[in-house]
Amino acid sequence: MERAGASRLPPELNAVVELIDQYRLGWSLDQAFYNDPAIFELERRLWFPRQWSVIAHASEVDEKGRYIIRHLYGEEIVVVRFGDAADDIAAYYNVCTHRGSRLCTKDGKGRLLVCPYHAWSFKLTGELQSKQEVPEGIDPANLGLHKVATRIVGGLVLCGLDPDVLPDAQPLADAIEGGLRQQGIDRSRILVRKSYPTKANWKLVLENFSECYHCRPAHPEYFRTNGYVKVVAMRDEAAAVEWQRELDSWHSVIGDAEFKKGAWEAGGLDKVQYGMYRKPIGSGRKTLSDDGEPVSRLMGGRSEYDGGETGFRLGRLSMISSANDYATLFQMIPRSVNETDVYLTWLVDKDVDVDINPDPITWMWDVTTIQDKKITEDNADGIRSRAYRPGPYTDLEAQPAFFCQAYLGEMRELITGEKSPAPVWQFPSKGYSSQPTCAVPVS
Amino acid sequence: MERAGASRLPPELNAVVELIDQYRLGWSLDQAFYNDPAIFELERRLWFPRQWSVIAHASEVDEKGRYIIRHLYGEEIVVVRFGDAADDIAAYYNVCTHRGSRLCTKDGKGRLLVCPYHAWSFKLTGELQSKQEVPEGIDPANLGLHKVATRIVGGLVLCGLDPDVLPDAQPLADAIEGGLRQQGIDRSRILVRKSYPTKANWKLVLENFSECYHCRPAHPEYFRTNGYVKVVAMRDEAAAVEWQRELDSWHSVIGDAEFKKGAWEAGGLDKVQYGMYRKPIGSGRKTLSDDGEPVSRLMGGRSEYDGGETGFRLGRLSMISSANDYATLFQMIPRSVNETDVYLTWLVDKDVDVDINPDPITWMWDVTTIQDKKITEDNADGIRSRAYRPGPYTDLEAQPAFFCQAYLGEMRELITGEKSPAPVWQFPSKGYSSQPTCAVPVS
Amino acid sequence: MERAGASRLPPELNAVVELIDQYRLGWSLDQAFYNDPAIFELERRLWFPRQWSVIAHASEVDEKGRYIIRHLYGEEIVVVRFGDAADDIAAYYNVCTHRGSRLCTKDGKGRLLVCPYHAWSFKLTGELQSKQEVPEGIDPANLGLHKVATRIVGGLVLCGLDPDVLPDAQPLADAIEGGLRQQGIDRSRILVRKSYPTKANWKLVLENFSECYHCRPAHPEYFRTNGYVKVVAMRDEAAAVEWQRELDSWHSVIGDAEFKKGAWEAGGLDKVQYGMYRKPIGSGRKTLSDDGEPVSRLMGGRSEYDGGETGFRLGRLSMISSANDYATLFQMIPRSVNETDVYLTWLVDKDVDVDINPDPITWMWDVTTIQDKKITEDNADGIRSRAYRPGPYTDLEAQPAFFCQAYLGEMRELITGEKSPAPVWQFPSKGYSSQPTCAVPVS
Repeated sequence: MERAGASRLPPELNAVVELIDQYRLGWSLDQAFYNDPAIFELERRLWFPRQWSVIAHASEVDEKGRYIIRHLYGEEIVVVRFGDAADDIAAYYNVCTHRGSRLCTKDGKGRLLVCPYHAWSFKLTGELQSKQEVPEGIDPANLGLHKVATRIVGGLVLCGLDPDVLPDAQPLADAIEGGLRQQGIDRSRILVRKSYPTKANWKLVLENFSECYHCRPAHPEYFRTNGYVKVVAMRDEAAAVEWQRELDSWHSVIGDAEFKKGAWEAGGLDKVQYGMYRKPIGSGRKTLSDDGEPVSRLMGGRSEYDGGETGFRLGRLSMISSANDYATLFQMIPRSVNETDVYLTWLVDKDVDVDINPDPITWMWDVTTIQDKKITEDNADGIRSRAYRPGPYTDLEAQPAFFCQAYLGEMRELITGEKSPAPVWQFPSKGYSSQPTCAVPVS
Repeated sequence: MERAGASRLPPELNAVVELIDQYRLGWSLDQAFYNDPAIFELERRLWFPRQWSVIAHASEVDEKGRYIIRHLYGEEIVVVRFGDAADDIAAYYNVCTHRGSRLCTKDGKGRLLVCPYHAWSFKLTGELQSKQEVPEGIDPANLGLHKVATRIVGGLVLCGLDPDVLPDAQPLADAIEGGLRQQGIDRSRILVRKSYPTKANWKLVLENFSECYHCRPAHPEYFRTNGYVKVVAMRDEAAAVEWQRELDSWHSVIGDAEFKKGAWEAGGLDKVQYGMYRKPIGSGRKTLSDDGEPVSRLMGGRSEYDGGETGFRLGRLSMISSANDYATLFQMIPRSVNETDVYLTWLVDKDVDVDINPDPITWMWDVTTIQDKKITEDNADGIRSRAYRPGPYTDLEAQPAFFCQAYLGEMRELITGEKSPAPVWQFPSKGYSSQPTCAVPVS
Repeated sequence: MERAGASRLPPELNAVVELIDQYRLGWSLDQAFYNDPAIFELERRLWFPRQWSVIAHASEVDEKGRYIIRHLYGEEIVVVRFGDAADDIAAYYNVCTHRGSRLCTKDGKGRLLVCPYHAWSFKLTGELQSKQEVPEGIDPANLGLHKVATRIVGGLVLCGLDPDVLPDAQPLADAIEGGLRQQGIDRSRILVRKSYPTKANWKLVLENFSECYHCRPAHPEYFRTNGYVKVVAMRDEAAAVEWQRELDSWHSVIGDAEFKKGAWEAGGLDKVQYGMYRKPIGSGRKTLSDDGEPVSRLMGGRSEYDGGETGFRLGRLSMISSANDYATLFQMIPRSVNETDVYLTWLVDKDVDVDINPDPITWMWDVTTIQDKKITEDNADGIRSRAYRPGPYTDLEAQPAFFCQAYLGEMRELITGEKSPAPVWQFPSKGYSSQPTCAVPVS
């Protein structure tokens, strides 16, 4: 890469660019990218504002005037329904334009958003309502709420911090909105929401989520429930052949023509990241439950179980695992250089009985995410050591390896202003799938 | 302003000066002044040591040898009575000159101050007593305790960290000592002391305390108890006229010739800040209680209730609200860039029965300060957002607006060494008072 | 000292060298050395990796395959027995070479060390066992565990973080291994281990531990139990004469020919620090117990009590106090600039009954260390004040004074690369001993 641009950078940024340029393709990142608060601060300024993330389900703001408080990349956001149309949802930074106070202090509903400090009020569409409070000579039109970019896709509210630099979300909507509707995500309601605050850099949380090489040692429940893990968690040619047979047989019955093809971790600052896949759970299991038997009501207008799981990826840090009768939304929200808030939200059909027992539904992803929190925190602890050196990703870790390259290229471009080449690195194929948990395209 | 001096500063100081020079008069401060630890560190080094603050009431050290530990701008201070005269009170940094240990670990009484580490002892006047411990060739006279500047005014102990740069406290004493005595502050005792640790920069705590625009939305109890709030918390010409009538009627009976006139936020590094005002509570209320009826014994030799409240300001961060039968002392002590310790101390006449019920006395300022803590912390939270921009102060926020200008001028002078012009900014008068809670002079 | 080297340093390092060069011999350190995170970071990078410390007793890994997790200078270490010979103990950074995860999450025993994340396994001697996991083209020989330097001396496991820069431990072994065996340390077992996390810089913990001037005011139990304290804690010529008589009389009966002479705080980066001394407890006491009577079984093959205490120093931050029937190991482990983990481990003969009452054994050092934690934290609190100035060490504080000089010389050498002269400072002799608690050589 050319260093002309970088050479004019301040020394601390030049040091980061040098670290990037020393990166060894196919190995884990240098310690600084996981531990250095200055690099997190760079991400906060440059990288996070360009990311689309799922922040809510539309059913959470089901009436005009209903608003909820959510968090995104360290920012508090108010998501508010301002009209009756499906897309009439806006989001604002939760900051009053008068003296900077938090505007909403809890979820609620109202005709206006009223600051509890000095009672400045704002329309649901963000404009300052109480214009009579503004001193003479100041234009109240400049004192509207600061907007967060929003996009409603298949019942999900996606947000991004900086409307000026976010990539166009249309390709994501084109690719996966149909799939989300087919899975009934748009006609679902929230059953349970649970947080798993994880003391680890967000990239470790993401890397862990995007490979299943660790599933055999670390996730016994997940391992026995999911047929495909025999392929992605171990190198076993016989198992791979057997799984391919199960896949073929399932596809011959089900077909996947219903799904558009999704891009897989294309990389690049100007492209929204997304993905979608379908596969059978395996071994005749109908859903992702302990015994494979139904745990809720069929979703998406389905009349019978087909034993499939559909995965979605929306941006870099939101995923969905959707079985026939429930779906699980994963949100990863960086809090500090070594803290990441992980939220799981279980969705069921909106007509599911309110008294339904949630435990069989939440079982698999709850036990698995508790385990993921532990192994990711142990990973972070080890990386803090002076003995840590980048280690080699194996061919079962293709996706985190690819992510590292894409991430570094994007950071380099953001710091230097020089266009980075698209990530190219690929593991040698060995005849068995390196398909990760989520986010691999149907092809 | 000239930049000759600033241009020779190190880059990080130059950046602060640039922020100051970009300040827009009448708007709230840039985010950095509320959030940046480096600016707090500058304040800690340059600005705090020049501030006089009330640190104790003289009755807390009522006998020779009695000492108490107090905190001031992150420093632990020992306040000690060294003689029997009213002014025989000194204060020292709580640091032994031998190895630097804390000298006193709890309040107490003694002939000497003895360090618990190696038993070095000091006279109540600060000199090293155990001279025999000092190695040969070292002058024990150089090993006395480090003094904190002290000044006793109307029964209150004022301290300041750096005797070399503190402004002369005499103008403050000249202006308000009479008023303090008239209110009986000098012949009072402490009834209750309570802390309200607030997660917000000290300037937000101070700004909140010095305007009452927020009193209507945020303080229902305070709003209904205090007549003047109808004027300072809302723009209502009719209410202003009515309040002026009540003021005139009260002054015609009471008079305020007894009070010296106080300066109001004059600004400037070389001047001690102080203020004093008197006003009726209003609506026939005798004192600042829930129903307006007496809650304690009359103070200051008064023989009957006149329904007035007297306010005092001592330095930038200490205030007193004094009703006829009790007084409330407010201390704001910065702890870190986003933490401020707020202490309230309720004073009653020294002869009040020890079994008196404190709840009716503490009621108003306790409920109000609990509310202030919440709104100030919400203010701080909002200002941390990347969406925060300085907002315009309204004409009901004249005092925080003036403070911002004075503060920035002083910081600029401390950083650059260039004399700053006196603050000039004024809201246009609109015929109703912009008199804030405290610290406005009687005129 | 020459400044040629220093002048080419970055400004922040130059500032540290300037602070070192301004040091006043015989006075406590500048505030920055106790409080500045940047100096702690320098120590962490440059100074700690060169220090040998006791990290475990060999009995804790008594069988092949047994491993324990320990902490050292912020690093997590796995100590493992890889063979049956006495010295077959190794230590590794607890970091997997694959993705950097913590390798062991609790103490255990096994044929291999297996990472719980992706099941990479390592031989007890550190080599990667699961070589089939390594991507093509990468040599598995480069993926063995990162070794920590180890040395077994008299049953104690010493470790140091950086084998490349650690001084040779042989002189320590030559000097004190015989003494450790004579005291039965090698044939002991752990009775109790207790932590005393102390909110103070590690140098304050060490300084406090290496002088007994504070023992009279701060340690009443220790003071009445230990005869020598009358000399090292106060300047009393009569007591000194009396103690010398007790010493002479004890030596005439016991002799100390059995002990090699140890060096005392020689200073210098290329020398391992160690020390050893013997002295009577005094006043006919048999052991370090409340009443001086035995509390456990005689150690080291001794057939009767001789009333002596033997002290050992192993590196800068590990000490042992060994009475006839129990020994106490002290470990000081810096955690951050103002946090030090202090561990005490009480050792008794390996054949002591498992039901023995530990309280009389742990009594003295437990009460004393609880007191030390308090006074050291008060010392740290005082030093944080803006009023702190370095103070003069007295002649009863010879050892911390000497340490300060040695430490600064070593830090200067590490920063500048210029050889520092050996520390020279000495207190004038006054006829009585300035022998500190530990680490003074028998001479």
